[in-house]
Amino acid sequence: MSRIVLKFGGTSVGSVERINHVAKIVKSEVDLGNQIVVVLSAMAGETDRLINLTKELSSSFQDSEYDVVISSGEQVSAGALSGLLNSSGIKAQSRLGWQIPIVTSGDHKSARIEAIHSKELINLLELNEVIVIPGFQGINSEGRITTLGRGGSDTSAVAIAAAIDADFCDIYTDVDGVYTSDPNKVPTAKRLDKISYEEMLEMASLGAKVLQTRSVETAMNNDVVLRVLSSFSDIGEDKKGTLVCPEDSIADKKIVTGVAASTNDSKLTLTGIKDKPGVAAEILSVLADDGINVDMIVQNISDDRKTTDLTYTVPNDESTRAKELMEGLSSSLSYKELIVDNNIAKISIVGVGMRSNAGVASQMFRVLSQNNINIDVISTSEIKISVLINKGLTEKALNTLHDHFELGNTTN
Amino acid sequence: MSRIVLKFGGTSVGSVERINHVAKIVKSEVDLGNQIVVVLSAMAGETDRLINLTKELSSSFQDSEYDVVISSGEQVSAGALSGLLNSSGIKAQSRLGWQIPIVTSGDHKSARIEAIHSKELINLLELNEVIVIPGFQGINSEGRITTLGRGGSDTSAVAIAAAIDADFCDIYTDVDGVYTSDPNKVPTAKRLDKISYEEMLEMASLGAKVLQTRSVETAMNNDVVLRVLSSFSDIGEDKKGTLVCPEDSIADKKIVTGVAASTNDSKLTLTGIKDKPGVAAEILSVLADDGINVDMIVQNISDDRKTTDLTYTVPNDESTRAKELMEGLSSSLSYKELIVDNNIAKISIVGVGMRSNAGVASQMFRVLSQNNINIDVISTSEIKISVLINKGLTEKALNTLHDHFELGNTTN
Repeated sequence: MSRIVLKFGGTSVGSVERINHVAKIVKSEVDLGNQIVVVLSAMAGETDRLINLTKELSSSFQDSEYDVVISSGEQVSAGALSGLLNSSGIKAQSRLGWQIPIVTSGDHKSARIEAIHSKELINLLELNEVIVIPGFQGINSEGRITTLGRGGSDTSAVAIAAAIDADFCDIYTDVDGVYTSDPNKVPTAKRLDKISYEEMLEMASLGAKVLQTRSVETAMNNDVVLRVLSSFSDIGEDKKGTLVCPEDSIADKKIVTGVAASTNDSKLTLTGIKDKPGVAAEILSVLADDGINVDMIVQNISDDRKTTDLTYTVPNDESTRAKELMEGLSSSLSYKELIVDNNIAKISIVGVGMRSNAGVASQMFRVLSQNNINIDVISTSEIKISVLINKGLTEKALNTLHDHFELGNTTN
Repeated sequence: MSRIVLKFGGTSVGSVERINHVAKIVKSEVDLGNQIVVVLSAMAGETDRLINLTKELSSSFQDSEYDVVISSGEQVSAGALSGLLNSSGIKAQSRLGWQIPIVTSGDHKSARIEAIHSKELINLLELNEVIVIPGFQGINSEGRITTLGRGGSDTSAVAIAAAIDADFCDIYTDVDGVYTSDPNKVPTAKRLDKISYEEMLEMASLGAKVLQTRSVETAMNNDVVLRVLSSFSDIGEDKKGTLVCPEDSIADKKIVTGVAASTNDSKLTLTGIKDKPGVAAEILSVLADDGINVDMIVQNISDDRKTTDLTYTVPNDESTRAKELMEGLSSSLSYKELIVDNNIAKISIVGVGMRSNAGVASQMFRVLSQNNINIDVISTSEIKISVLINKGLTEKALNTLHDHFELGNTTN
C-alpha cells in the first residue's frame, strides 16, 4: 500500500471523455490498495475564459475578486471528478481550499502556501475515501480565497504530498516524462528514467515546461518524490515516466543529463563605458527598481583598455523597457553605444556530474567552435553551463551537444 | 438612508454589458447614501452549462458534488461584480455562502436556509462597504456546499434581507413588476403598484414567474418588503415596479387584483366508480406515493345515481404516469371509463377583497357563461377562484374577466 497524490493538468481534464479517463486511472490505483489524493487543474480553456471575463470588465480588475472568479475553474473540475467517482462506485469527496484549509500568504494572484491542515485528510484516507482537491487555491488569514499564480496546481500537489507524508506525487501531464532535450528539435532525445531535483530545477527554469520551478523547489525541500507521467497512456500499462528524486538515489550518474535551449531573451550591450567603481551596480539597480529580471551578465575591458563593455540579457518582453532605461542613463554614464540584439538563443547543458568533472565547459566550447557556432556570452553555475549564440543555430547547437555528450544513449 | 438588498437574476448579469449596468444601479443606490447588499444569480446559461456537464459525466451524478459544481456559477458572478465595483471606485467585497456563513439544512440540491450569520455583514455595511453575495448557495452542518434548488437566489435575497433587517428587498428582473394579467395575452393588463403577500403567493403558484413561491413565503413570514423592479430601465429613472407588502399597507383594495391562466395541467376523469367509502383516498394515495402532485379535485354523483365520477388535475408531464397508475387500479376499483384531457386551461381570479365580498364566484361563473365559456371544474380558496375551461378559450376568458373586474383601470 502506498499513499499517492495524483495531479492532473488542464488538458488531462479538458473534456468529459478525459475526466472519465482520469477516473479510470484513479480506480486502477484504488484497486491496488493505494490511498489516493487527486489534485486537479481547471478544465483546459476555463482559466483563460474566466481571466478574459475579468479583463473585459476592467483593465484594473481587483486582485482579491480575481481570485474568487478564477478559483471557480478548479472547483468545477474537482466536483466533477469526485461526483463521477462516486457514481462509479468509488467513495470520494471533494475538499476545497477553504475546507481543508490550505492556508496561504495574503498576496492575491501569487500567494504562497504556508500551512495545510492534514489531520482530516489523513482520517478520510484511512477510511479509504479518495479525496479530490482543486489545485491552485487556498485561503489567507482573513479567510478570503487566494490563488497561487499560473502553474500553481503542481505546487498544491507537492505541498499536499508533503503534508500527508505521501510516498509519491505523480504529476500527470500530456508528455510521458522529462527528456534529455526538446524532442521537437532533437530527434534522438530520450526520456530520462530519473533526474535529480537540482537538475530538474535548472531544466524547468530553462523552459522545460513539464514542471513549474516552484513545485520542484517545494518537492526538494520536503523530500517529496515526484513522478512525471502521461495521462494519455492506456490504463494498466507500466508506469513509464521520469522520477524526480534526490541526487543520491541515482546510481549511474552521467556528467551531462540534458541540453536545453531558450529563445526568450534579448541581449543588451553598452560599449565604451568610462570605467569607474559602481558602474555595473548602477545599471543593474536601475533595472531592478523597475522589476526587470537580468539573467546573464558579462563585463569586459574594451579594446581601448580605458573603457569597459557591459552585456546582459533580459526577457524579450522587457527589452524595450530596458532600452528606455539605458537611454535615460546616457548622461550620467557616458557610454559609447547601446546595442539591442533579439536574435539570440541561450544553450545550456545541465548535470550534477559536472561538479566532480572539470573540463566540461571547455569540451562544450570546443565542440561548438568546431561546428562554427560562435559563443557570445557565457555563464555557469555549479551544475549548468549556458552560452549565448545566434538564434538561427539553435537546433544545430542542441544536436551537436546532445551527440557529443552521448545523451541519446541515456539509460540511467 | 435605507438598508437595501438588491437581487439580480441571470439575464440581468448575463453579459459584461449587463454586469456593467448592474454596477451603475448599485452606484446610484450608494450615491443616495444607502447601505447595499447585492445578491446575484449565475450569468444566464451558466447553470445549464454546468448541469449538462454533470449529466454528461453520469446520469446518477452525486448530489453533494453537484452542489460543488453548480454553485461555482454564482461565485463567478459575485466575484465579477465585486471586482468591477472596486475598479469603479466603490468599496465592495464578495462574501460566499461559506464565508458568511449561510447555514442550511443538509439536503443537497434543495436545501433550506436555517441561519444567516449577519453580524459581520452589518459591520461591513456600517463601514459603507457594498457586500456581494452569490445567491442559491450555503453550507450544511458538515461544512459542505449546498444549493437551494432552482430560483433559490430570490430566497437567498429575502432571507438575507430578513437577517440584516433591511428596509427593502429589491428583486431586479427582466420585467418591471407584477401585472394584473399576462400582458402577452391581455393587452389592457396593467402593472400593479402594490400587491399583498397572499395575493402574490397565489399569482406565483399560478405561474407568474417574477417571484418564486418560496421567496414570497419567506418575505411574508419575516415582514420583508419586496419590490419587483426592472434591471433594464435607465439609471436615474423613477423606481417604478411593484411593492409586495402586508395586506394592511394597501389602502385602496380592489376585490380582484389579478387574473391568471395556467395551461400546464392535464385532467383525468374516472367515471362510474362503484361508490364506497375511501375510494377518493385510495386513488389519491396511489398518486401521492408516486410523488405526483394533484391540484384540483372534484367528485360527483353519476347520472345513474349509484356510482360516482372523480376528476382531478396533475401537471402535464406527470399525466402519462398518472394514467398508468389509474389503469393499475382498474381491477380493485371497477370504474367505467378513464378519460385523459390535455386540452384544458386553468383560469383563476385572485384578490384579498374576496374575503369580505360574497358573490364574486357567481359573478365569475355568470360572466364566463354569458360569453359561451363552459366551466368543467371549480376550486376555490379564501382569496382565489379557479375554473377549468377549454384551452382554446384561454385568452377570451382572461380578457373577459379582466374587463369585467375593471383591472385595466387599476391605480391602487
